[in-house]
Amino acid sequence: MTREEKLAQLGSTWSFTLLEGGRFAPERARPILGHGLGHVTRVSGATSLKASQVARAANAIQRFLVTETRLGIPAIVHEEVCSGVMAREATIFPQAIGVASSWAPELNQQLADAVRAQMRAVGSHQGLSPVLDVVRDPRWGRTEETYGEDPYLVSRMGVAFVNGLQGADLTDGVLATAKHFVGYGASEGGLNWAPAQLPPRLLREVYLYPFEAAVREGGLQSVMAGYHELDGVPCHANQELLTDVLREQWGFTGSVVSDYFAVNDLHTYHHFAQDKQQAATVGLGAGVDVELPATDAYGDALNRALDTGEVSEAQLDEAVSRVLRHKIELGLFENPYVDEDAAATTANADRHRDVALEIARRSLVLLKNDDVLPLPGKAGTVALIGPNADNARHLLGDYSFVAHIEALAAARKRRGLLGEMMTIPDDLEIDESTDGVPTVRDELAARLGDRLRFAPGCDVLDPSTEGFAEAVAVAAAADVAVLVLGDRSGVTPDATTGESRDRSSLDLPGVQEELLRAVVATGTPVVAVLVAGRPVGSDFLHEECAAVLMAWLPGETGARAIAEVLLGEVNPSGRLPISYPRGVGQIPVFYGHKVSGGRSHWHGDYVDSPVAPRYVFGHGLGYTSFAIDDATVRGAEVRAGDSVGVEVTVTNTGQRAGEQVVQLYVRDPQATITRPVLELKAFARVAADAGQRVAVRFALPTGQLGFYDRSMTYAVEAGQIEVYVGFSAADHIHAGTFVISADPDQPTTKVFTATTEVRQL
Amino acid sequence: MTREEKLAQLGSTWSFTLLEGGRFAPERARPILGHGLGHVTRVSGATSLKASQVARAANAIQRFLVTETRLGIPAIVHEEVCSGVMAREATIFPQAIGVASSWAPELNQQLADAVRAQMRAVGSHQGLSPVLDVVRDPRWGRTEETYGEDPYLVSRMGVAFVNGLQGADLTDGVLATAKHFVGYGASEGGLNWAPAQLPPRLLREVYLYPFEAAVREGGLQSVMAGYHELDGVPCHANQELLTDVLREQWGFTGSVVSDYFAVNDLHTYHHFAQDKQQAATVGLGAGVDVELPATDAYGDALNRALDTGEVSEAQLDEAVSRVLRHKIELGLFENPYVDEDAAATTANADRHRDVALEIARRSLVLLKNDDVLPLPGKAGTVALIGPNADNARHLLGDYSFVAHIEALAAARKRRGLLGEMMTIPDDLEIDESTDGVPTVRDELAARLGDRLRFAPGCDVLDPSTEGFAEAVAVAAAADVAVLVLGDRSGVTPDATTGESRDRSSLDLPGVQEELLRAVVATGTPVVAVLVAGRPVGSDFLHEECAAVLMAWLPGETGARAIAEVLLGEVNPSGRLPISYPRGVGQIPVFYGHKVSGGRSHWHGDYVDSPVAPRYVFGHGLGYTSFAIDDATVRGAEVRAGDSVGVEVTVTNTGQRAGEQVVQLYVRDPQATITRPVLELKAFARVAADAGQRVAVRFALPTGQLGFYDRSMTYAVEAGQIEVYVGFSAADHIHAGTFVISADPDQPTTKVFTATTEVRQL
Repeated sequence: MTREEKLAQLGSTWSFTLLEGGRFAPERARPILGHGLGHVTRVSGATSLKASQVARAANAIQRFLVTETRLGIPAIVHEEVCSGVMAREATIFPQAIGVASSWAPELNQQLADAVRAQMRAVGSHQGLSPVLDVVRDPRWGRTEETYGEDPYLVSRMGVAFVNGLQGADLTDGVLATAKHFVGYGASEGGLNWAPAQLPPRLLREVYLYPFEAAVREGGLQSVMAGYHELDGVPCHANQELLTDVLREQWGFTGSVVSDYFAVNDLHTYHHFAQDKQQAATVGLGAGVDVELPATDAYGDALNRALDTGEVSEAQLDEAVSRVLRHKIELGLFENPYVDEDAAATTANADRHRDVALEIARRSLVLLKNDDVLPLPGKAGTVALIGPNADNARHLLGDYSFVAHIEALAAARKRRGLLGEMMTIPDDLEIDESTDGVPTVRDELAARLGDRLRFAPGCDVLDPSTEGFAEAVAVAAAADVAVLVLGDRSGVTPDATTGESRDRSSLDLPGVQEELLRAVVATGTPVVAVLVAGRPVGSDFLHEECAAVLMAWLPGETGARAIAEVLLGEVNPSGRLPISYPRGVGQIPVFYGHKVSGGRSHWHGDYVDSPVAPRYVFGHGLGYTSFAIDDATVRGAEVRAGDSVGVEVTVTNTGQRAGEQVVQLYVRDPQATITRPVLELKAFARVAADAGQRVAVRFALPTGQLGFYDRSMTYAVEAGQIEVYVGFSAADHIHAGTFVISADPDQPTTKVFTATTEVRQL
Repeated sequence: MTREEKLAQLGSTWSFTLLEGGRFAPERARPILGHGLGHVTRVSGATSLKASQVARAANAIQRFLVTETRLGIPAIVHEEVCSGVMAREATIFPQAIGVASSWAPELNQQLADAVRAQMRAVGSHQGLSPVLDVVRDPRWGRTEETYGEDPYLVSRMGVAFVNGLQGADLTDGVLATAKHFVGYGASEGGLNWAPAQLPPRLLREVYLYPFEAAVREGGLQSVMAGYHELDGVPCHANQELLTDVLREQWGFTGSVVSDYFAVNDLHTYHHFAQDKQQAATVGLGAGVDVELPATDAYGDALNRALDTGEVSEAQLDEAVSRVLRHKIELGLFENPYVDEDAAATTANADRHRDVALEIARRSLVLLKNDDVLPLPGKAGTVALIGPNADNARHLLGDYSFVAHIEALAAARKRRGLLGEMMTIPDDLEIDESTDGVPTVRDELAARLGDRLRFAPGCDVLDPSTEGFAEAVAVAAAADVAVLVLGDRSGVTPDATTGESRDRSSLDLPGVQEELLRAVVATGTPVVAVLVAGRPVGSDFLHEECAAVLMAWLPGETGARAIAEVLLGEVNPSGRLPISYPRGVGQIPVFYGHKVSGGRSHWHGDYVDSPVAPRYVFGHGLGYTSFAIDDATVRGAEVRAGDSVGVEVTVTNTGQRAGEQVVQLYVRDPQATITRPVLELKAFARVAADAGQRVAVRFALPTGQLGFYDRSMTYAVEAGQIEVYVGFSAADHIHAGTFVISADPDQPTTKVFTATTEVRQL
């Protein structure tokens, strides 16, 4: 390979640079693709092409590369994947925070499997997910894209996603890209791209942990570095983490890709590299193999760095070999093309939408219910109010196709963040429609007919209160009022959650709180449905509403799931993957804090509020009740390297079938490094009919129970471990205590998960 | 020395365990003092004894030790020192955050010198100050005890304090105790005693920096470890910091004392040590020489650890030798007694109160002034309103004598935090009076006579609005309303700032905001005077009040300073030592952030508020105006190890004499570790008559401009440095840019301060 051919493999180009009128344009493409290409950026996600058109464009790009370049190496097509693949016609799944609320990794694996099928059908090969950022500051607008606050839950969701996306065999799989390496969710002030301040042990125990699980247990193929810096070193320059930890300690053999524009950002944004050439040198040297979304620093600038010897040919070859190995393993050399006619049938297949619905049903977290839900099925009128009640767009997360195509449209109109970074062609057809996505109003009307009365009341962010009077009148005349409030997700200025849509308050945006107060003042019982990307709502909301249902951003089947839950067709079973603060002044509030400090009530509460969150991690109600009959730890002593059995039986003590999440927490009561007051180590989602009993058996390996000792070595320490099982981080019982007898000469093998068996009794 | 005698030197006892009816009680003391004693805890600060009684008690204790114990070694008497020494009759200076607002380290040195004199006069030898915690989260109740957010300003205040307290010769000096080592002000959620999460470089650059300056430049004699943990290691167990950094890297030769009860806390609080014996082993092993306030772990438990060999005799000897060296250097062996008759004359000498007044005058920060201040001297009526308007107690900080004796009284009544830890004898006379401390009302009435109308309006925290009507009536009838609002400082449940009085909001406590709104609604112009421990106040307050004066907790002369400023007798000149957030959702907001993240407006503001603080670091108004005429950097290139000259001339362009603080900031525009957007490196307080010019010359050593490089070595890097001078972190001009030509073979000597010359032109 010539040097130009090698450099080309480390670069990428926006799909629209190769297209004209939605079709491959060889004369436009020729100067870009002459030496080949590593990645094509978003054939689906940066165009409004339908699935069959995407497949045709992808095939044409590959055909050009195969037939018109010297080496004939196909490109990897990557796409954004968050609530499904970012593609017109693709299934829009619940946003990640809702998926995490299902506490059902197996469903996330099905989600990713559906994404895999949809991507492969149109010729895409790498998905820029899962987001493995642990988040404890919901001011951050990307909270919605995450699996929440707990490293174990995040890792379970992450490994499941990787397994689903990569599939059993990469020749039919899609490369998963865990991001944003690392600590991106811990940004200062909840501000996107801001520095994260993380000491080494916390970094390893909490923030690196899900990545480590994805690599070691999930066989993760790709990692994306974060935009931010850690302790003065931008992540794209962090050789210690990208190479020493990721590759040398964990054995990662895949590729590291840059976040969009972020190699050059070492110079322009972080003021860390003195020019583009140094940025390329530092980035490649640290271990960033591929530059996305377009070749910038890794083109001429990297070439100059090779000329001067700042970068060696061997470094270049190593990165190139990683890209080529991906292409071999993906089967691109054998089969670079897809069946254009078949593409459309896979795009949003019924079976995929069914998965979305099953997740949506389990993603809804019933936070509070003073006997008002489910709504009576046969009698009475329901007032439906609020900016998210009759809006399909607001059900969708920030990386959904519609949300992002909006951003492209906005960027084309004005010099915004994206506008500065790329030129969006005028001939790019942009389709922002949400046709086919039912709203909550649609779904409730289908069930309630003329018992449903609707008034929007207000907008999410707009300050107009013109609609209040109508909303109040509708509410006053109804037996119950359902207020669908919350966020609009996206990256445009009217969005209140999403990338760079960080907030300094957790109150409802705009005048929604005022609308709520006006409706509550009617005396009609109020059910608040929060379609939102982060925990929101005032004391008033959570105290005065008769019920509160957190729906997150539930995707295209979300309205149906909400209607089903409101009417009792589905028994809600989502559980919080993140502590729900009382307000922004409590941040960070998370269950796995250390014993020291106010969170443990040593010093009591804040002067002006409790230290405990409004709703605790793992919390969620349903329409039936469960009780723990028995919880036992098998064995009083276990040797390091072995497992201990924990057996739990639960009974559905209520009147109808339901699902419950049995959660296992441990506490190390005394250790040579202070330990969290509780750590989630296993969980099981169980289903039971009324009166039915279920047995759960966990085998908890001691390799899960180590920590980074004084010398930063992962070690299992001899001593007691207390085991708690229950239904949230607050609602649990002490199942027992066992003793680990460690052999100090035996190195510790880290284990990432317990095994779980569920048996109906 | 026998082992018991050695152990005794590492321990301490509460003064009241040795007293009865306020006098030394030999029979009570004999079992405690039999083997001698390291420290006596607060003869002033845990009793209500007057100065002469303290001196008598201290003499009696020393006499017993000298004459009735085998070795005759006197004890060190330590006292709390925050806003002056915690002693009845002692001068109550402005609380530390107000002292820092003076930007006058020389006044802080005078303060500490006065404290030194007052302590020595009654036989005290060690002061538990300065607080060198850098704080960027004002939720923390101890924010008031600090010198603010900036490591350089904190270090200047800290070194000045150490110099003043320790004096020229320790035989007449008092050991300074820098605390809380280290990062205690960075606690999670602003919660006292909570873990601080600090990566290594941030720890060194920001949090260790003031301690390093105090040790290396100030000759600091003692350090107190923090209650909290860093990355899983409690500070009292942190050998890496207490020994490796403090002693080996910095050359510290003094003693490390525990924070109260904190050795035993390694077991009971942190669950880090398995029992008291291990706590003693770990604490002494880490480098904690002395246990305060009472011998607990360092008594029998440490003795058992010596028996088993977990602690070596050599470790014990090393700690003992440090204590004995202090006693020698303090001159205790030559002269253990004080002149009891002279004690009272020094306790609150006029010259000390004058220092308090001079600081109070410069501690007041005029945040906003829409031409309403100074108040007209001759005509019109002034309504004085608010819970802090006629309250002497509320002018005082949390470690003032009155505030702490309140806590003792409260603890005696009920099992509280202190009640659990110590038994307060029933015969301890407790005096909570604030006799002799004038209130704002007193001082204004003395100046305004019957032009002043007063109504309290409400309490700080109590929710009663009964007083609103009267306050509104008084305001409506007046030409201007002065609302004195804010906090009550202390450690009891009615306190809103102070130790463990952390808040989750920066709004005014209680119903004060409502009172303010009611008064503003009268249409009478409102001046808000905030007597508060931290930045407080809503958008409404800061937007609708015509003027806002931040008075902090200004001490016993504070009311006079406030009255003088309100009436224009004194031209206010305080400058913020901490960024003033718009609300709690902005935390942390500080001027010295990195370029990345929203603080630099890369991504714009929060969805719902600006990212910039309400008032920036260094901000403060006066009744005259200053302009920079000229600012020049002398020399374009400087070798590492040399200094660069920066010359500034300013003119008082207003109509009256005033003081201004000329602030010098640098920015390293590109470096191999990302740098703050601005770093304060020098400042000078200047005074000028109307029209007068002042020249300031800074000599900025390059040794101030290094940072911890990739290998965590402090190094000065070759390259450009931009210099800015002005009157706040936002209001400045670019004085010039110079280039450092570094010699990579030359090790960097860290320098802690620039030299400054001020000359009237």
